[in-house]
Order: sequence, then structure tokens, then C-alpha cells
Amino acid sequence: AERRRQQAEESHRQDSTKVLVFTLLLTLTILTIWLFKHRRFRFLHETGLAMIYGLLVGVILRFGVHVQPDVSNSTLTCVGKSRPSSLLLNVSGHLYEYELRGEVDSRSSDNLPSATFDPEVFFNILLPPIIFHAGYSLKRRHFFRNLGAILTYAFVGTVISSFVIGLVMYGCVALMNAIGQLDGDFFFTDCLFFGAIISATDPVTVLAIFSELKVDVDLYALMFGESVLNDAVAIVLSSSVVAYQPSGESSQALDGRAMLTSLGVFLAVLSGSFVLGSAAGVLTALVTKFTRLRDFPLLETALFFLMSWSTFLLAEACSITGVVAVLFCGITQAHYTYNNLSAESKSRTKELFELLNFLAENFIFSYMGLTLFSFQKHVFNPVFITGAFLAIFLGRAANIYPLSFLLNLGRTNAISLNFQHVMMFAGLRGAMTFALSIRDTATYARQMMFSSTLLIVFFTVWVFGGGTTPMLSFLKIRYTHTHTHIHSYTHTHTHTQETVGTVGRRDTAWLFRLWYTFDHKYVKPLLTHSGPPLITTLPACCAPVAHCLTSSQTYEVKAHTHTDTNIHTHTHTHTDTIPPTMPYTQINNNYMDCTDMVVYGTLCVVLCCAMLCWMLCNVLCGVVWCGVL
Amino acid sequence: AERRRQQAEESHRQDSTKVLVFTLLLTLTILTIWLFKHRRFRFLHETGLAMIYGLLVGVILRFGVHVQPDVSNSTLTCVGKSRPSSLLLNVSGHLYEYELRGEVDSRSSDNLPSATFDPEVFFNILLPPIIFHAGYSLKRRHFFRNLGAILTYAFVGTVISSFVIGLVMYGCVALMNAIGQLDGDFFFTDCLFFGAIISATDPVTVLAIFSELKVDVDLYALMFGESVLNDAVAIVLSSSVVAYQPSGESSQALDGRAMLTSLGVFLAVLSGSFVLGSAAGVLTALVTKFTRLRDFPLLETALFFLMSWSTFLLAEACSITGVVAVLFCGITQAHYTYNNLSAESKSRTKELFELLNFLAENFIFSYMGLTLFSFQKHVFNPVFITGAFLAIFLGRAANIYPLSFLLNLGRTNAISLNFQHVMMFAGLRGAMTFALSIRDTATYARQMMFSSTLLIVFFTVWVFGGGTTPMLSFLKIRYTHTHTHIHSYTHTHTHTQETVGTVGRRDTAWLFRLWYTFDHKYVKPLLTHSGPPLITTLPACCAPVAHCLTSSQTYEVKAHTHTDTNIHTHTHTHTDTIPPTMPYTQINNNYMDCTDMVVYGTLCVVLCCAMLCWMLCNVLCGVVWCGVL
Repeated sequence: AERRRQQAEESHRQDSTKVLVFTLLLTLTILTIWLFKHRRFRFLHETGLAMIYGLLVGVILRFGVHVQPDVSNSTLTCVGKSRPSSLLLNVSGHLYEYELRGEVDSRSSDNLPSATFDPEVFFNILLPPIIFHAGYSLKRRHFFRNLGAILTYAFVGTVISSFVIGLVMYGCVALMNAIGQLDGDFFFTDCLFFGAIISATDPVTVLAIFSELKVDVDLYALMFGESVLNDAVAIVLSSSVVAYQPSGESSQALDGRAMLTSLGVFLAVLSGSFVLGSAAGVLTALVTKFTRLRDFPLLETALFFLMSWSTFLLAEACSITGVVAVLFCGITQAHYTYNNLSAESKSRTKELFELLNFLAENFIFSYMGLTLFSFQKHVFNPVFITGAFLAIFLGRAANIYPLSFLLNLGRTNAISLNFQHVMMFAGLRGAMTFALSIRDTATYARQMMFSSTLLIVFFTVWVFGGGTTPMLSFLKIRYTHTHTHIHSYTHTHTHTQETVGTVGRRDTAWLFRLWYTFDHKYVKPLLTHSGPPLITTLPACCAPVAHCLTSSQTYEVKAHTHTDTNIHTHTHTHTDTIPPTMPYTQINNNYMDCTDMVVYGTLCVVLCCAMLCWMLCNVLCGVVWCGVL
Repeated sequence: AERRRQQAEESHRQDSTKVLVFTLLLTLTILTIWLFKHRRFRFLHETGLAMIYGLLVGVILRFGVHVQPDVSNSTLTCVGKSRPSSLLLNVSGHLYEYELRGEVDSRSSDNLPSATFDPEVFFNILLPPIIFHAGYSLKRRHFFRNLGAILTYAFVGTVISSFVIGLVMYGCVALMNAIGQLDGDFFFTDCLFFGAIISATDPVTVLAIFSELKVDVDLYALMFGESVLNDAVAIVLSSSVVAYQPSGESSQALDGRAMLTSLGVFLAVLSGSFVLGSAAGVLTALVTKFTRLRDFPLLETALFFLMSWSTFLLAEACSITGVVAVLFCGITQAHYTYNNLSAESKSRTKELFELLNFLAENFIFSYMGLTLFSFQKHVFNPVFITGAFLAIFLGRAANIYPLSFLLNLGRTNAISLNFQHVMMFAGLRGAMTFALSIRDTATYARQMMFSSTLLIVFFTVWVFGGGTTPMLSFLKIRYTHTHTHIHSYTHTHTHTQETVGTVGRRDTAWLFRLWYTFDHKYVKPLLTHSGPPLITTLPACCAPVAHCLTSSQTYEVKAHTHTDTNIHTHTHTHTDTIPPTMPYTQINNNYMDCTDMVVYGTLCVVLCCAMLCWMLCNVLCGVVWCGVL
């Protein structure tokens, strides 16, 4: 018992040290970021910086520290026929339970200090706050103005890009096979998987670079919106490819039926996540509207946090993608729930998620740097890496240029060729690509992918990330340095509103008008304290229902017409008077582009129909999807 | 590979569901708390509420859900001679690694859904934010005024209480042994361990109940201060008992040498944690003072968070107690670093830790409720439980009444008998006791302790927690309901400052004056932007050093003399002017009681000396404490 306690303590101490290393790494990164900001040095971006520090620590761990191989860990070797997930060991009558950790490579002899985390940590702890934050801070009119273009790039473009990359890589692998460079299996589905994971551009880096440069708002909206949404597409696409690659190892060629099922999974998961995330947002909005929870900002913030987190957990428990659900949840929370929160909760939730996002993203990037040296199964293949670099350029080009051409046919203000070049250039790969590729590094193909992905991320973040500023000057796209951007959200909002006059109102089409009116008249008043009271918008026959659904605050809001958006108004007394809320005239100005809105509406309808059809189809065919759910 | 992936997915889904249950439980608790606050119903406290919900879920899981025993988990049984921490399984050439999870009870046949967490989660994730928050929000003059009394209760009192409880329980166990009620070993060290873990009163419940009731500030300071600090004592005391109970199972009687070593460990760990925590706080203060990080509140908050967390990790990595280190770190951060932060960071850090604390404490209490039904090895023994209840009353009495008598000899304003009764009555047991008792439930004695502890926590929180209000009225101690207390910290601060006039200034003794002057003249100016500039306080020969250590802001602060403590002053522009800081006349008013200060100073000196002596002694004796470090 004594020895076991000591072992447990030892392992606990090692774990603590491991986390401590990263904490200190982050602290160092923060101090350097401050120094860079202070000295206005902007050629190396903060995420690039985090990676460099990670690299340094990786080098130290790799070449500086030598760990004694732990003798007590490998004294007993059992021989069995199967590989159960847990094992019972009988030592003189006592039963001890052992849990499967994974396959051990018998070839690897060196004992590196394993400063590695379970890859699931990235998906379950680090990514959700980043993605939620992206959704939550997305409440910008320019995003909604360009929604159609964003959706086109994110959905259609990413799928095109995945396939192009997959095909190029297939050619590359065939070449490698021919010249004898391939030491293991690499199937067509692996190529497609690689295409799916490498197609996602990173919102983290885009957000960081562009928000500081204050570029053209439309370009910013396009870049940011695309990079957030194509993360969702990449996750779902890659898991579809994995889920429906034939399980027999020999028949790895993609057959038609598997392809179709993959498509079904893709649509079902995407729409399921959309529905779940939006539902959670709507539920939170209802709860915050109909309780007077706003009197207690702490409770309100806690509820908001828990509900958003539940969305992720619920989605994971239902086997659909939590990260995607969290994205849509964030958008819904920003659009509806945010209006119900008390002034203090508004700032609290923003600051909380801003901090979580900051810590998580810096952690991911320093970990990335660390992995280059600490990961033990790297397969660096020059041909494959060259092919991958070529493929991502071709894939990105096949996404941006043709789709921009098509979009410009329907847009009143065209996406200029310069904008297209920037979008092409600034398609950095980041956290999501890394998380997807580290998730499974069991086979030779996956290891090669992981190593190449790592190099691609490094290259794009350092070279393209650092080169964005010169690129923008070269292409003569106006930008100004805003030194204080990081300071608070309200700054950004005012920036956007200042420059909004440059883009005129578009003509509106019936579908857009329909949705906008519906949202403004019914959904917003139902879910939030803003908008016109339901009594005035609903027909007379529904008056009792409307009365019961309309909060007393809605009327009072109408009286206010001040435009003070400063969220820190602490002077009011909290117990008796109602805190001032934003007047609805100011909230409901997410006017959208007509063509964009048509695309968006159609997409929603198509997704929902697709999900229904596919589930029906599966039930009929006897494939038990519901069993999985 | 396919089957393994499915298993991994299945286990991931189960984990998600498990966490989801708790998230929803917390959401429910929050809504009910709001309802209770809204309806001003205060006989059931929110922590009691969380426990009730936990209990309900426990009942449902216990009697409502039936889990199929997982066949694939127990197919292979190896027979071995030792019990290694990891195992290699050879399946047709492939090696799989298995990790030890723990001993399986061969008697337990029923498969309960295991909604259990690793006990380490409590210590490493949930407790640190609670304890840090306690330290961070401790910046109250009344705490420092009563520091001597608090330290006496917390240190001397808790040790007395532990021994009294240990002795009573030893008698109880002897009785049980005599009447044949004992089914396993229960040694004297186990009794002492029980005494150590059950002696810690809970800051969570005390804080929650008393801060809402706005009782006498001195009583509040005594209760709160004691309960925070005795957690630290309980942790260190219990781990000392465990560490130095003789490893031979037969010789469990405590011998003199082991006792002495235990005492050495106790003092060394306590002073080590104190030094480490304070050092981390001082370091953060220096970093925030000498960089202009305050221009970027996000970076500042992140740094603050990471440095505080590092303290915990560093302490754990050094094998001293992280929770204790975090407590002292919190106190130091509040005393020094807080003054350097920008106005936005001040509110951000407070709100962040308030939220973390709220979530963690409610999680612990709902988990406690759940455990009563979901824990599978309960040993409820009526004699032991009765004995335990008797023991905690005796122990508490032996702590409060004699020490109060002694303290009153030296105090100018005596601790009245009514106050003593309240302190006796409101000594609730909570999160820390639970966390300590769940940490190891391997032996029969520990299981019996755990079950009894659970009942004691339930009883004290529900009965004593709910009965505090009537008790206070009965004892005629003035209190008023402050409905909006939870709202923000600044409220509390103003409350305290309003009532401060009632307690007059005490006479000051030389040791106190020495420390206060030293802190005010040198430490505060060195570490923070407040206090008089070092140039004026240091002798002339040190002028260059003083110049270099004095920030430009210190001078400017002197110009300000406004007393506006509202921390949300967002109207100033951030880039060019310096944000207004609190004038030092207001910050340095933690005037302390002279006797208290003497006790505090002596204690610090004794602790440091003890640690040095003990380490030296160990080095000489060849006991390799340094090897453990």
C-alpha cells in the first residue's frame, strides 16, 4: 500500500510538472506578447510566438532531459488472444483492474519525457471555448450582410477544396508508390481525409491579424465568417470520411454506396448540430427572459456558461459534433440571449469567454510547437510534404476564384480581385487542422499526415501570417493600425458602425424580407426583451397568449431611446429599478444582403429536408442510426 | 481497429453524459437558488439545496437505471506475483499497454452506473479556485484586526480539536471492538486522521450564510478567517498523519519518533506553502508593476490567472500542499498585486474567481448528495456515527471556549459569550472535509469514516446552516438581511467601511508598528503603485536604487486624492492617460490589533525557523527529504 501511494504521488507530481511547464510557457508568451504590442512590433504574430516558445521547450525536452526507463512498469507480460478494454490481474487473491492505454510500439527503444496530452483534450476542453467565442462575438452586421458569400465559401468551397486536395494527394501518393518512397499503406480515403482536415482555415489567426489591422469590413467579414464555418465543415466532413471508410482493410477504394452514406452522415450531423445548438440558445433566451435572474449577475453568468457547455456535452452524448453545435449555440446566444442579460452579465460573459479563448488558443499553439520535437512517430517525407504544399494552394485557389466569379454574378458590390488574392493568401491553417490530425496517429498514413500538417501550420502562420501586412499594402487595401483593439469589444463595435456608411443599403428580396420581418416581429419579441411587444404584432385572436408572453420590460424599453452602448453603467440601483437595456431600434439592424439571405434560407431548408429524408431512409433500410443516437 | 474506435467513442459518450448530468444538475440548482432568493426564502441554504438535488439524482441512478454488465471488460484474467503500475499484453505480436486503475472488490456483484469522479479532481480542479477566492476576497480590515484570534483558533484550536476528536473516537472504537461491532482494522492513527479531516470548518457555507446576513463584522471576520485557515491546517495535519504512520501494518500505535517527524512535516509543509504562495504573489506584483501590462486588461487577467495557478502546480510538483499555497498566494495577490491592476482587470479577476468559486462549490455539494447513494462501499455503523457526532461537538467546544477565554485575557474588546456560542454552533463541515475523506477509501476504516463524514456534513449544513438565522435572533446578535449582497464586491466593501466606526483604534505595540511601518514604507512601494514613493522613505544613499524602483505612476497617484472606489470607471481613454488608481491613503488602512500582530509575527518567525531546523536536522540524520522534493 505504501509503495502504491508513493507511485501515485510520483505520477501526480509528474502531471503537475507537465502542466506547470505549459503554464509557465503561457506566462512567458503573455509577457512577450505585451512586449511586442508595447514596441509595436508586428511581423511575428502572437500565435507564431507561442509556437516558437513551444519549439524551444520541445528542443530542451528532446535533447536536454533524459528520463530513466521505469523498470517497475514493464515487469509483467501476459499473452492473450484478444485485446479487452480492461484487464483483471490476480495477485494472491486480490483483483486489480487495468485499463487499456493503447498499443505500444515495440521498436521504439528511447524513453522520451512524454509531455503529451490526450488528443481528446483539444476537442473537449480547448476547442469548445474558442469556437463558442467565435460564434458569440460574431454579432456583426457585416457578417450577416455577406452571409451568402460566407456560406458559399465555407460549405461549397471547403468541399471543393477537400476533393481537390484529396485528388492531388492521391496523385502524389501514386507517384511516391512508383518511386518506392512509401513505407506503408495510404489509401484513397486517407487522401480524402487529409483533404478534409487541411481545408479548414483558422479563425484564430485570421481574427487576430485582421482585427488588429482594421481592414475593409467586408473583407474581414468574409475571411472571418468563412474560417469559422469551414471549421465546422472540416470536422463533419472528416468524421464522415472516417466513419464510412469500408472496414475491410483491403477494399479501401471509395465505393458509391459508402460515398452516399458519407454524404448522408455529413448532412445529418451538420443539421443535427445546427438544430441542437440553436435550440440550446433559444432555451437560454427563454429562461433568461422569463425569470428575473438578471438581478443576480453571478447566477446569470453561471447559467449562461452552463447552458452553453451543456450544448457541447449533449451533442457529444448524442454522437453529433459538439464543436459545431457550440458554434451555432454561440451565434444564437449572441443574437437573442445577449439582449436579455443584465449589463453586468453582458460584460462578464464576454470577458469570460474572451479569457478562455485567449488561454486555449495560446495553449494550442505552444503545444503545436512542442509536438514537433516531442512527438515520437514523425514521418517526414519530402515528396509528400511538397505535394501537400502544392495541394493546399491548388485547393484554396479552386475554392476562392471560381466561387468568387459565381458570387460576383449575383452581388451588387463585387468581391474585387484584390480581395480574392488576400483571401487566397491569408488562408492560414491552425488549431482545428492540428486538433483533427493529432486525433488519430495510429497508422503510417496518419503519422505522415500529422507531420506534414504540422509543417504546413508552421509555414502558413509564420510566413503568411507575418506577410499579411506587406501583402495588404502591396494590394493597396486600406488599413490602419488600431493599437487598442484588444482592449474591449465595444471598441470594435463602434469601429464597425463608423465605417458602415460606406456600403449602401441593398435592395431586398421577398425571402429575405420574410425572414427578417418574422424574426423582428415574432422571434425576437418572443425570446428577448427587445423588439416591438408581441401584443402589437400578433393578430387580435392571440392577445391572451401575447399578453402572457410579453414581459413588462418590453414596454419600458420603448420609452428609452438613448443610444448609449457603454455596457458599464453601474450607477443605477439594482434592487428596484430595471437596468436600462439597449433600445430595439439599435439592436435589429442586422440588415442582410438579399442574395445572401436566399442562399441561407435555401441552405437551411435543404439541410433540414436532407436530415429528415436520410433518417427516414435509414429507418426504412434498417440501418440503425437511431441505435447509435 | 474499428471495434476499438467504437469502444473509445462509447466511453467518450458515457463521459460526456456523466458531465452533462452534473451540468444540468447545476443549472437546476441555479434556477432554484434564484427562486429562493426571489421569494426571500432562506431556511434552506443554497449548498443544502445542491445536496438535495444531488441526493435525488443519486436515488434515480441507484434505483432507476440498470446498467448491463460489460462483458468485454473482464474476459482475461492474468495471475501474477506483483502488482505493477502498468502491464503489457501480447496479442499475436502486438503489445498493448494497460494502466492500473485500482483494486476491484471481488464481493461487489452489482454493476451500478458509476457517476463517480476521480477524487483527485476535487483536490486539483475544484478546491484551488475556492480556496484562492477565499484568500483573494479576504482583503478586509476586520480580518487583519482579528488576525491573532483567527490564527489562534485556526492553528492551535484545530490541532486541539483534532486530538480531542481522535481520542474520543479511539474510545468509541475500543467500545465497538468490545461489543463486537468492528469488522476490520481501526488503528489509533486512523482515529487521529479522522480527527484531522473532520476538524476543518467550511468557509463556503460560512461565507454564504454570514455574508448574506450582515452580522457583526468582528464575528464574521472571526468565523470566516478561522474557517479558511483551518482548511489549510486540516490538509497538512491529515497528510502528516498519513505520511508518518508506520508502514508495518502491525505497529500502528504512534511512537514518539513518528510523532516528532509528523510534527516536522506539518511545520515544514505549512511554512513551505506559505513561502511559496507569498513568493508567487510578490512575483506577480513585481511583474504587474514594472511592465505596462495594464494597458491590455486581457493579458493582465490571463497573467494573473496563470501565475496563481502556477503556484498550485509548483507546490504540488514540490510535494507540498498546493491548496495551502494557493490560499497564501490569494492573500498576497489581494494585498499587493490588486493595487497594480488596471480598473478593468480588477473587476475581471474578481468576477472570474467569483464564478469559478460558485461553480466549483455547487458542484462539490451536489456531488456530495450524489455520493450518498452512488458510492458502493458505504459502512454505516450506528455506534461510530453517534461517537463521531459526540466527538465533533466536544472537539469544537475544546477549540472555542478555552481559547476564547485565553484570548479575552489579552484583547481590548472581548469575544462575548454569545459570539462564542455562535462560533460553536456555526462550525459547519463541508467541501474540504468531504474532499479529504473521499481521497482514500481503500480500507474498512476509511470507508466507515467516509460514510460518517458524509452524514455529518449533511447534518451540519442542513440543520446548523438552516438554524443559523434563528440562532442569531435568539442570541440577540444584530443582523440585517442584505438582499443584494451577492451582486458585487464593492457593496461589501462599503458595508464594512460604514460600520467601521463602531470599533475604535487599538493601542499599538512595537512589533506591530514595526511590521506595519515596514510594509507601508518599503514593501508596498516596492511591489505596488501605492504608498509613498521609495525615494522619500529610503535613506539618501539608496537614491539611485529607489529611483529605478519607483514607477512614474506613484507620483501621479499622489496628486489624486479622490475617494471614488467604484471600479467601473470606463470613461477614461486608455492609450494616453493613466487610469486613476485608488489613493494610497485609502488602501493602507489595514490597521491591525497589536496582540494579533504579535501572534502573527511570532508565528511566521517560528514557522520559518522550524522549517530550517527541520530540514537541517533531516540532512544531518540522512533522511532524504530533499530527495522527495
